[in-house]
Amino acid sequence: MKVGELGERALVNLMAELIECTAVLCPGADDCSAIAYGDHYLVVTTDMLHKKTHFPREMTGFQVGWMATAATLSDIAAMGASPIGVTMAVGIPRDTDVAFALDVMRGCNACCTQNGTTLLAGDTDEHDELTLVGTAIGSVQQDKMLTRAGATVGDVVCVTGELGLAAAGVKMLLESRFADHRLRERALKKLFEPEPRIVYGQALADSGAVTALIDTSDGLSLSLYELSKASNCGFYLRAADLPISEEAKSVSHDRWEELTLAIYRGGDYELLFTARDGLLAAIPIPYTIIGKVTQSGMQLEVDGVVQELKAEGYEHLTASGPRV
Amino acid sequence: MKVGELGERALVNLMAELIECTAVLCPGADDCSAIAYGDHYLVVTTDMLHKKTHFPREMTGFQVGWMATAATLSDIAAMGASPIGVTMAVGIPRDTDVAFALDVMRGCNACCTQNGTTLLAGDTDEHDELTLVGTAIGSVQQDKMLTRAGATVGDVVCVTGELGLAAAGVKMLLESRFADHRLRERALKKLFEPEPRIVYGQALADSGAVTALIDTSDGLSLSLYELSKASNCGFYLRAADLPISEEAKSVSHDRWEELTLAIYRGGDYELLFTARDGLLAAIPIPYTIIGKVTQSGMQLEVDGVVQELKAEGYEHLTASGPRV
Repeated sequence: MKVGELGERALVNLMAELIECTAVLCPGADDCSAIAYGDHYLVVTTDMLHKKTHFPREMTGFQVGWMATAATLSDIAAMGASPIGVTMAVGIPRDTDVAFALDVMRGCNACCTQNGTTLLAGDTDEHDELTLVGTAIGSVQQDKMLTRAGATVGDVVCVTGELGLAAAGVKMLLESRFADHRLRERALKKLFEPEPRIVYGQALADSGAVTALIDTSDGLSLSLYELSKASNCGFYLRAADLPISEEAKSVSHDRWEELTLAIYRGGDYELLFTARDGLLAAIPIPYTIIGKVTQSGMQLEVDGVVQELKAEGYEHLTASGPRV
Repeated sequence: MKVGELGERALVNLMAELIECTAVLCPGADDCSAIAYGDHYLVVTTDMLHKKTHFPREMTGFQVGWMATAATLSDIAAMGASPIGVTMAVGIPRDTDVAFALDVMRGCNACCTQNGTTLLAGDTDEHDELTLVGTAIGSVQQDKMLTRAGATVGDVVCVTGELGLAAAGVKMLLESRFADHRLRERALKKLFEPEPRIVYGQALADSGAVTALIDTSDGLSLSLYELSKASNCGFYLRAADLPISEEAKSVSHDRWEELTLAIYRGGDYELLFTARDGLLAAIPIPYTIIGKVTQSGMQLEVDGVVQELKAEGYEHLTASGPRV
C-alpha cells in the first residue's frame, strides 16, 4: 500500500507505534512532546511547511518565514509553555532571489523576537521546493503544563480571538470580488502572519482554571475532536455563541457557509480550551465561551436544532485540496 | 542575484547576520547553538536531508531514518553534550510504500535508542521529494561544553576512528568493480548508518584535556578550516599519520587518491579535536594524533614535502556534485 492511499493520520498513528519514547508526552499525543528536565518540562514540536501546500505566491518572503515560525510557536503556546528558542531548516530552490531568501530569515527572526524568544540553529539546503521546518523548544513548570487531556464534564469550552478569519483570507485569495480593503487586509494578515498566542497560553497555565488546551491550527472541529479523544469526553457547541469574524461573514453567502469557515477551516492559530466554570474569573485574557464539555458526542446547536459536529478539516496526503 | 549563484555558505552568512540571537552560541558559529538553561547549556541543531543529495536508491528506509537521526546527533556529540531528544519532520511522496515509510521511522527510533535518547515530536507531510529534518537537543555543564574555538598553538590535533571510510563507500556505489564483500559491507554501513560519537564526545568533554571539537561530517579539511576560523589558528598535518581506512586504500589507484578520500570527502561523522599535549593521558577513548596546532597556515606534509591543505569538501547549491 502507498502512503497516499493510507492517509496522513493513519500513517502517523502507525509511525507513532514504532517509537520507543521515554518522554512524559510522546509524539502524536499532543501539540508538543514533553520531557522532564530538572523541575520543569521541556516541550518540543516540529512542523514542516512547504510551497505547494502552505505558501501561495501572494506571500512575501517575510511572511513565509513568519508563518513557519508562528506555526511551531503556536504549539508551544498550546502547552502553556514559554519558548526557549526556535530552529529553522530552510530548503530553497537555486533560482530563488537572494533578497527573497533573506526576507524569509527576517520573518523568522521577527516572529521570534516579537514572542520573546530567539532563533537558534538553522540549516540551509538546496531543494526543488521551498520547504521550511521549524522546531520550537519551550519550558513549563511541571504542575502548570496544559495538555489536550483533562477536560471534564461540566467545564466550559472557550476560544480566544475570532473564528474563520484565516479561512476568509483563503476565500478572498481565490475569489477577487471581495473589495473591502480593510477586511481583506486583516484577513490576509491573519492568514499569512498569524500570531502565536504565547502570552495567552502562559496566562491560561498560570490561571489554574484551565483543564485542557489546544491550538486551532487545524480548525475548530478537528481541534475539538483531538480534545475529545485525549480527554475522553464529548462537546456541545452553540453556533450562536461562536465569535465568527466580520471577515468570514462578509465573504459568506449564507449562515451555513459562515459556520463552515468558522468551524471546519483552519489557520486561525487561536487557543481552544476547557475551564472550570467556577474559576473563570481567574483567567485574565479575552476569550469567548462557545459551549460545554459533555459525557460523549460531538454536538452543534444551530438555531435550536442539534446536529453532529463533523470531523472535518484539513488533512494532507488524502486531502481534497490545499489549505491555502 | 539567485541563491544558486551566491552559494550556500555565502547565503548562510548573510542570513546569520539578520538574526538577533540572544543565545550563548548563535546559528552558524558552531555545530550547535547553545543557550543557558539553569546551570547547563541546552545545545540545539537542525539538519535537512533529502533524496536527491543524501539518499541514494541503495539505501533502505531504515538507513534513511538512521542517517537523518545520526547526522543531527553527531552535532550534539561535537559539543560534548548528552542528547535529550530528537524531533523528526518527514516529507514523504504519496507513492511511497507504507512499509518503506515505517522503516524510516524504525531507523530514527533505533538510532535514538542506541544513543541513549528518544524521539520527541514528529511531523509527517506530503512532499514531492523524500525530505527528513532532524533536530536534536542536548545538554552539557556550562564549564564542560566544547566548541570549535579554543585550539591553541602547541596543541595536538586528533581524530577518532578512521578516515575515508564513507568516501570509499561512495566510490564502491559508483563503481561496481570492487568485489571484496567484507570491505564493501563495512564501507556502506559507515556511509548509510554512521555512528554519532555521543559517548566519545562526552568523554572528551569530561577529560579536561580537549580545547576544541568538531565532527567531520563535511570532511577532514573543511572541518579543520572551521576550527581554524573559530580558534584563529593554523594546522600542520602529517599525511603519514592519518588513520586512512583499509577500504579507502582498497578503492584508490594511488596515494594521491587515498589522501583525497581521507581529507577532502565527508560522511565519516568522526570527532576531530585539539588537545593539550601534556594532558593526553586523561583522554579515555581511542584516537589518532594527526598533527599540531600552529600560529597560521593550513599545511599538509606528504612524504617530506609540505603543501597547502585545500578548503575543499562538499558544499550545496554551488557544489559540482552530490556527496553520495
